[in-house]
Amino acid sequence: MANETTAIQPSREQDFPEWYQQIITAADLAENSEVRGCMVIKPWGYGLWERIQQPLDRMFKETGHENAYFPLFIPLSYLEKEAAHVEGFAKECAVVTHHRLEVGPEGKLIPSGPLNEPLIVRPTSETIIGAAYARWVQSYRDLPILINQWANVVRWEMRPRLFLRTAEFLWQEGHTAHENAAEAVAETEKMLEVYERFAREYLALPVLTGEKSESERFPGAVRTLCIEAMVQDRKAVQAGTSHYLGQNFSKASGIQFANRNNQPEYAYTTSWGVSTRLIGTLLMAHGDDNGIVLPPKVAPSQIVIIPVTPKEEGRAAVLEACEKLATELRQLQLDGEPLRVRLDTRDKPGGAKGWDWIKKGVPLRVEIGPRDLAAGTVFVGVGIRASRRRPPIPRPISCNRL
Amino acid sequence: MANETTAIQPSREQDFPEWYQQIITAADLAENSEVRGCMVIKPWGYGLWERIQQPLDRMFKETGHENAYFPLFIPLSYLEKEAAHVEGFAKECAVVTHHRLEVGPEGKLIPSGPLNEPLIVRPTSETIIGAAYARWVQSYRDLPILINQWANVVRWEMRPRLFLRTAEFLWQEGHTAHENAAEAVAETEKMLEVYERFAREYLALPVLTGEKSESERFPGAVRTLCIEAMVQDRKAVQAGTSHYLGQNFSKASGIQFANRNNQPEYAYTTSWGVSTRLIGTLLMAHGDDNGIVLPPKVAPSQIVIIPVTPKEEGRAAVLEACEKLATELRQLQLDGEPLRVRLDTRDKPGGAKGWDWIKKGVPLRVEIGPRDLAAGTVFVGVGIRASRRRPPIPRPISCNRL
Repeated sequence: MANETTAIQPSREQDFPEWYQQIITAADLAENSEVRGCMVIKPWGYGLWERIQQPLDRMFKETGHENAYFPLFIPLSYLEKEAAHVEGFAKECAVVTHHRLEVGPEGKLIPSGPLNEPLIVRPTSETIIGAAYARWVQSYRDLPILINQWANVVRWEMRPRLFLRTAEFLWQEGHTAHENAAEAVAETEKMLEVYERFAREYLALPVLTGEKSESERFPGAVRTLCIEAMVQDRKAVQAGTSHYLGQNFSKASGIQFANRNNQPEYAYTTSWGVSTRLIGTLLMAHGDDNGIVLPPKVAPSQIVIIPVTPKEEGRAAVLEACEKLATELRQLQLDGEPLRVRLDTRDKPGGAKGWDWIKKGVPLRVEIGPRDLAAGTVFVGVGIRASRRRPPIPRPISCNRL
Repeated sequence: MANETTAIQPSREQDFPEWYQQIITAADLAENSEVRGCMVIKPWGYGLWERIQQPLDRMFKETGHENAYFPLFIPLSYLEKEAAHVEGFAKECAVVTHHRLEVGPEGKLIPSGPLNEPLIVRPTSETIIGAAYARWVQSYRDLPILINQWANVVRWEMRPRLFLRTAEFLWQEGHTAHENAAEAVAETEKMLEVYERFAREYLALPVLTGEKSESERFPGAVRTLCIEAMVQDRKAVQAGTSHYLGQNFSKASGIQFANRNNQPEYAYTTSWGVSTRLIGTLLMAHGDDNGIVLPPKVAPSQIVIIPVTPKEEGRAAVLEACEKLATELRQLQLDGEPLRVRLDTRDKPGGAKGWDWIKKGVPLRVEIGPRDLAAGTVFVGVGIRASRRRPPIPRPISCNRL
């Protein structure tokens, strides 16, 4: 646990990876669970994810997509169908082999009921969704299919790092099927553009778009486009990908349709996704030596109001003024939504509460004490501090301009 | 596949369970996947789930809860800690025993990398969340914890039925911890009341609230309260539960705190949940012999506008009128939200499109053809038809009034 009332130790320049862990702890965003590689996303961290989900979901729907949900489990045989895909994911799959437990000696539980065919927990859903699309598509009239899924996925991770690399993570995965290559390529590029716009407008991340080299491509893809964010240790972080899959997965899954000439043809598919890794990227790009820094559009609370009332005397009047201000601020809007204003009435000294919110990266901090009340003023602290030193903008790594 | 242009076969009275399957297929809500017991929730079904999630999530937040996310996997040893809980869930757990795959003879994949301790896929999260709360709670000042999680869970199911009993299902699970029994009991009752209000106001289900008998209690609970919905085969369906867990799980997980007398004490916990089973309940309560019937507040689209243009002549004018009407209707609000209006421009006869939407239970259907345009009229079909026959209201089963 970082010290409660001072800057993060170590600083970014002293030890960037350790600083990253410390800002997450200090902001109470997430923690490691006792299940290797699986994190607990705490309310402030999950609130951030919700604020990422909402505009993205709206952008997906505005571009014609609908949400659906596909099984968590994938039969082993599905994975075997696409050679490159197997190669890419076989080494990191959680495998379900039994469907019940029996109580053994000394009350220990023992796996029982072996499955005829083991199931893997989805590392990504191309194969299970492909099997569904194969059932749904008969004619070119059934295309395009434009579907997105919000889900958890599992990729066994030997060196987990909160938000950046975890065995289980949350994400969205778009999966579309089209009647020709041009339309599928256009979809791939359109969703990359959505990701770029979201990163810039909501996360304040000036990402670069590019295409991955062959060795970095998604296993089974023809082309992998990506957004790469530059973070403060001078490295690029892959923050979202959009894949043109050609006919690779439609052949593996049998997504075949009668085309406009009434000839059988395999569909052209795409997939695209961003995950809770966006949170890690955001933290590494914007955090400073006092903690995380959140862009107002995605901050779970945009303004926190802190009553500073060390003495009983005057406490009621200060609280009343704080509540009145909160009510007034909630009438205001940012981007068509009411401002998210939190009143921190916890039984804790005002200074300590102020530091809590600095570490949590809340964009605007309003502190009101008896003297402020008498003078008709408030103290305002701004999350993004003018004084912070930033390393020079780093150069991108492994990312070619599109 | 049910016939595309007539009523559902069989009728409710002829064969209620088969009718239930048929209305789901006809409405294109969901389908079985090739993974035993796991369903694919298709866009119209998932849209319904989203419309259930949104108001519920708002109601949880209005009652002081925040969302968070906990691991999908639970170590076997966690489950062993609470005897009744093990008993209840051991026979339906998916067990992960390996964390990678190797390519064997003939390209077959073989589970590899055995885990030291097998993991189960969460059937519910009391134990894994309890382990986190044990880390978070030291003093009564850390209480209450009021957290909800939206997640997928797995309970191996031998006789799956879409939405009602599936191996994987989507749900929310609230988990709260309190410093005394009275507060925890009050929470249990408050959330039951939220469920009841939601069922009545959004799903139009006049549920009964009650307490489960000892044999029907949640494994490990002290009391299980429930909402029960009456459906058309004269049976009661358990549509949501709220559990007072006493100190059973806090003792198992070690959620101990220094109370106001500075004495160590175990926290008092609750859990409460509703799932995609709400969709099944809704279908069985409101469906009729023409298909599903959706209450306007949760219908993914509340109004569908169907241009009926058998001939090329006049098509453009009809389409323009439909688009104008859609734009006007979207200016109107229901419950503070814009009306959800869909324009069905698919290349399909108007009559067939009309039947599609009847089967999908859309509340209001507007059809416009060239003659309507000339006469300045529209045809309006109402989802909830006055003529439908309903069996008498059934008596509740296994549910005592609270």
